[in-house]
Amino acid sequence: MNALLIYSGGMDSTTLLYQYQQDIRLAVSFHYGSKHNDREISYAEMNCKKLGIEYLTIHLDFINHYFKSSLLQSGGDIPEGHYADENMKQTIVPFRNGIMLSIAVGLAESRDLDAVLLGNHFGDHAIYPDCRRSFIDAFADAAREGTVKGVQVISPYCDISKRDIALIGQSLHVDFAATYSCYKGGEKHCGKCGTCVERKEALEGFDPTVYEA
Amino acid sequence: MNALLIYSGGMDSTTLLYQYQQDIRLAVSFHYGSKHNDREISYAEMNCKKLGIEYLTIHLDFINHYFKSSLLQSGGDIPEGHYADENMKQTIVPFRNGIMLSIAVGLAESRDLDAVLLGNHFGDHAIYPDCRRSFIDAFADAAREGTVKGVQVISPYCDISKRDIALIGQSLHVDFAATYSCYKGGEKHCGKCGTCVERKEALEGFDPTVYEA
Repeated sequence: MNALLIYSGGMDSTTLLYQYQQDIRLAVSFHYGSKHNDREISYAEMNCKKLGIEYLTIHLDFINHYFKSSLLQSGGDIPEGHYADENMKQTIVPFRNGIMLSIAVGLAESRDLDAVLLGNHFGDHAIYPDCRRSFIDAFADAAREGTVKGVQVISPYCDISKRDIALIGQSLHVDFAATYSCYKGGEKHCGKCGTCVERKEALEGFDPTVYEA
Repeated sequence: MNALLIYSGGMDSTTLLYQYQQDIRLAVSFHYGSKHNDREISYAEMNCKKLGIEYLTIHLDFINHYFKSSLLQSGGDIPEGHYADENMKQTIVPFRNGIMLSIAVGLAESRDLDAVLLGNHFGDHAIYPDCRRSFIDAFADAAREGTVKGVQVISPYCDISKRDIALIGQSLHVDFAATYSCYKGGEKHCGKCGTCVERKEALEGFDPTVYEA
């Protein structure tokens, strides 16, 4: 397989980067103006350099300009609490995965690559509609039908938990200290926002993260 | 219905603008670096102003930077001949409709709109996979599943010809002189590229276009 990885620099897509490193010809980060984009992306670039994988960042300024979400620099404060809580819905960036996948599919077709890899997982489903199996399957059909080559969309972690991903990563010797999750985007992980709470739970027993709290 | 129109400034989407003007809350053009983008977009803005419809342009610079297509400023010469000819495949911008639709769906959800309108038509199918019914239907499923609101994707002209659209436009008193099609992007329509040939055939009998040839 010749694949393009949608790569945030978080622990899930970094595990994908390690797991599929033989197949990945290009890793792409999207800079869409989230509070934690810059920090995530610096880890993404670093990990690709380490594994010798071509890497690029695509800027999507229109999202921060025109979309509403507390995840964005233009949005309100990041809520604290558990990832599955109702107030985490403020952090939805509408159809973000649809947008990233579409651009990735077009770029894959331009580069004659067969597939796009996305690191969404089962724990995302409670909050984010564009992380669910029903979305991924429909989008995969659209990508196949809408390209000359029939580009595939592959979501290897769609039906497993973040804990499962952490265990896969551990077995692959992923350096989780070189990944970033916190929605607040500070130098250290805050340890309190939904995604930090989720990270802690997933990495329990082998967590190298230095949290603020 | 509260809809967002993907609006190029060509004759098909201008006919959609007129036909659904009561439902359209926002029209969006995408500037992705095609040779004819600037000229198309100036008509799009003018027509929205005339009908009192909110309008914005979203720049997608990454397409011209990273994608391969003779339609782009970064690509080779636009082929001449008939729209359905084999050499017109050079003008495919990979997954362009997927990319524009995804952004439109996210923006519609951000603005609490119900639907996205796209003006693809039956004559596009021979060349462009992301204009076919199978793509549109799969993408519509993805948009519904991937948004909280269940944003609809509506393609009213997917199963009719450009001639049929021209006749609808004529009945709605669309000013076709205030639309632009030519892939070469010159001041006058060239009259020779695939999309000019197609425009001439569609508007036969009531074509106000001044062609170069």
